[in-house]
Amino acid sequence: MKNRNVLYAQSGGVTAVINATAAGVIEAGRKSKKIGKIFAAKNGILGALNEELIDTSFESDREIAKLKHTPGGAFGSCRYKLQDPDNNNSEYKRLLDIFVAHNIGHFFYNGGGDSQDTANKIANFTRDMGFPVQCIGIPKTVDNDIPFTDNCPGFGSVAKYIAISTKEAGLDVASMAETSTKVFILEVMGRHAGWIAAASGLAQEKQTDPPHIILFPEIPFNQKKMLSKVKSTIKKQGYCVIVVSEGVQDNKGNFLADAGTKDAFGHKQLGGVAPQIASIINSSLGYKYHWAVSDYLQRSARHIASQTDLEQAYSVGQAAIEFVLKGQNAVMPIIKRKNTKKYSWEIDKVSLSRVANKEKKMPRSFITKDGFGITGACKKYLNPLIQGEAYPPYKNGIPVTANLKNRLLKKKLRAFKLPKK
Amino acid sequence: MKNRNVLYAQSGGVTAVINATAAGVIEAGRKSKKIGKIFAAKNGILGALNEELIDTSFESDREIAKLKHTPGGAFGSCRYKLQDPDNNNSEYKRLLDIFVAHNIGHFFYNGGGDSQDTANKIANFTRDMGFPVQCIGIPKTVDNDIPFTDNCPGFGSVAKYIAISTKEAGLDVASMAETSTKVFILEVMGRHAGWIAAASGLAQEKQTDPPHIILFPEIPFNQKKMLSKVKSTIKKQGYCVIVVSEGVQDNKGNFLADAGTKDAFGHKQLGGVAPQIASIINSSLGYKYHWAVSDYLQRSARHIASQTDLEQAYSVGQAAIEFVLKGQNAVMPIIKRKNTKKYSWEIDKVSLSRVANKEKKMPRSFITKDGFGITGACKKYLNPLIQGEAYPPYKNGIPVTANLKNRLLKKKLRAFKLPKK
Repeated sequence: MKNRNVLYAQSGGVTAVINATAAGVIEAGRKSKKIGKIFAAKNGILGALNEELIDTSFESDREIAKLKHTPGGAFGSCRYKLQDPDNNNSEYKRLLDIFVAHNIGHFFYNGGGDSQDTANKIANFTRDMGFPVQCIGIPKTVDNDIPFTDNCPGFGSVAKYIAISTKEAGLDVASMAETSTKVFILEVMGRHAGWIAAASGLAQEKQTDPPHIILFPEIPFNQKKMLSKVKSTIKKQGYCVIVVSEGVQDNKGNFLADAGTKDAFGHKQLGGVAPQIASIINSSLGYKYHWAVSDYLQRSARHIASQTDLEQAYSVGQAAIEFVLKGQNAVMPIIKRKNTKKYSWEIDKVSLSRVANKEKKMPRSFITKDGFGITGACKKYLNPLIQGEAYPPYKNGIPVTANLKNRLLKKKLRAFKLPKK
Repeated sequence: MKNRNVLYAQSGGVTAVINATAAGVIEAGRKSKKIGKIFAAKNGILGALNEELIDTSFESDREIAKLKHTPGGAFGSCRYKLQDPDNNNSEYKRLLDIFVAHNIGHFFYNGGGDSQDTANKIANFTRDMGFPVQCIGIPKTVDNDIPFTDNCPGFGSVAKYIAISTKEAGLDVASMAETSTKVFILEVMGRHAGWIAAASGLAQEKQTDPPHIILFPEIPFNQKKMLSKVKSTIKKQGYCVIVVSEGVQDNKGNFLADAGTKDAFGHKQLGGVAPQIASIINSSLGYKYHWAVSDYLQRSARHIASQTDLEQAYSVGQAAIEFVLKGQNAVMPIIKRKNTKKYSWEIDKVSLSRVANKEKKMPRSFITKDGFGITGACKKYLNPLIQGEAYPPYKNGIPVTANLKNRLLKKKLRAFKLPKK
């Protein structure tokens, strides 16, 4: 029987190292004699539904290797949630047609919690329909909120970027505070989980170092308490650096920064909480402020990716191929922290059914009692994840990235009409 | 006669490499037998007026060397403009008292155009008062707007950071545009000169690459033209990356983003033009957007400083000492681009009286005809300035920076009351 092909799809927000995972899949797949071709869905699951499948065998080994230092999603990603197959299984049927038409026996879905849920449903559906496709969920999210895995590929790099940026900007603010900006606010990603905001705490060597205040989504925003802490910090240090998670909420659970639009999952689009916090502080205390919103810069900052993160992102891609070769199905590779004195890790696995749609928030024990900082236990957890500087090669002063052909397979099926949502 | 001491002061907004200039001054000064001690004014000129003088001789050679990879201003900087000595010369008299009391024969003022003007006035005043102090202005500004010098130390690093960030974020946006963000806006510094915004153009390898639109302060904002270009770019590329200078103005010369506050020089505090542009585009064309404001992150990003910039920043510091040894006065070291095929540069000098308070804006020939991009001539000028990656050392995943004692000299004079402004 002809070796069955792999379909790899990227899902949701991209990261600085998601393409390293793709490289892990493709390089491991190319080494195996039991794996057919590796296809990549153009723009994630939408490409699978629309039969827009990229044949990665047209890419040279050299170009595939460059994926390890290319941020963004090299085949395109999307935010698109499949319907619940119990209500409308047309998308699942369509995927099955695609799998059959292109001899796809292995489906890898590289995303967050939502995607693991989808991958699990696809595994069940194809099994029930008598064309079982091995579905492997591959974890990816800058938010670090997927359960069971010690940490998520993509997070370590954004954590490193935010820690470094906080230290650098903190030095800038400190040197000007006497006559200029006294309050600096950096807004970071993290809708429900404060892991990215927490990472800024790694910038702090001494207790008096920035960040002086971290605002977590897990801790209801308390304006009075924050203002009091800003005031006392400026009295003592002369300036105050605040890192605020985009997802910070009031005590009724409303986001402080609600841009009013929603994405395909019904999630609210957030952004702009930094200027809000700045305005609260300025109107109450009158201090001069500056604010920054790093937005996509943080999750695409491959130029200062964590070496640990890069290796883990590559390994979970590799592991997907290994799992397939071992006959595994409906599982996700996870990072398991080994019980060693010096940080070490290995790849383990978990059933997709257990992962689906759960969010891992910051434990309260990782946040200081006053709610504005991270504890020693949190630093101990986070610190290994930002170790090592995985510098990309440069040409002409600019990082070199992959330039893929992204050649599409010839379509074999009729066009598919996406169901209305 | 006892060797006379140096007073070095940092002025205005700090940069990723201003401390490398300080290292250049101190290391060159330590090597010379004709230079006394090197003092640094705490928080810039304010420290000089308040007799808060740091004695750098208490810092080890090792710690001084670390200044080369420490962003921000290691001795503190300030935004404080001396009065015009023709109206009120009390500050000049005070400085003279300080110079006499601490045997200071050489004053180095490390800043932008404003500071060069001040340094020139101090040179004239001390000469007229019979205690001539050699005043050397040392150029520094991320804005790259000081005339006579081919470029300004501090600019190359922010240029590199913005070019890299634009490329990285552009790859992120491109991969998600099918179902998510179609317009990404990055706000960068540059009040009157668009050099930093221009640097984003270095991210562009092919004409279709980001940035698709650059909004310069030099080109009056034309909403209709911008919207039309956004629309056509999205039609062709599927997404649109815009880099906007904080100083972009309407055709009446009003800043689009005027935060309503002013600094010590009467400059308006800007910030938040990115969300404004986003809102204009969203309300007219309805595209989903994201925006980032890099603010202090861009000028403190020592982790990806340009090697060329670092070397030039160090050299202008060194040159100040050399000029002193050669008996020069009221001059500023400048970077002179040599007439060679491969980029090369040397240190030259210019009289402070010629530099004072002029701003070098982008020449029109550096901006494309439609006003939204940079020309080949501009790329040719900018590209050498971002060459080389001057990585700092890391410890525990975070860059290592200097940790100075900043020990103050014993005061010899009475307290000085700053004149009311």
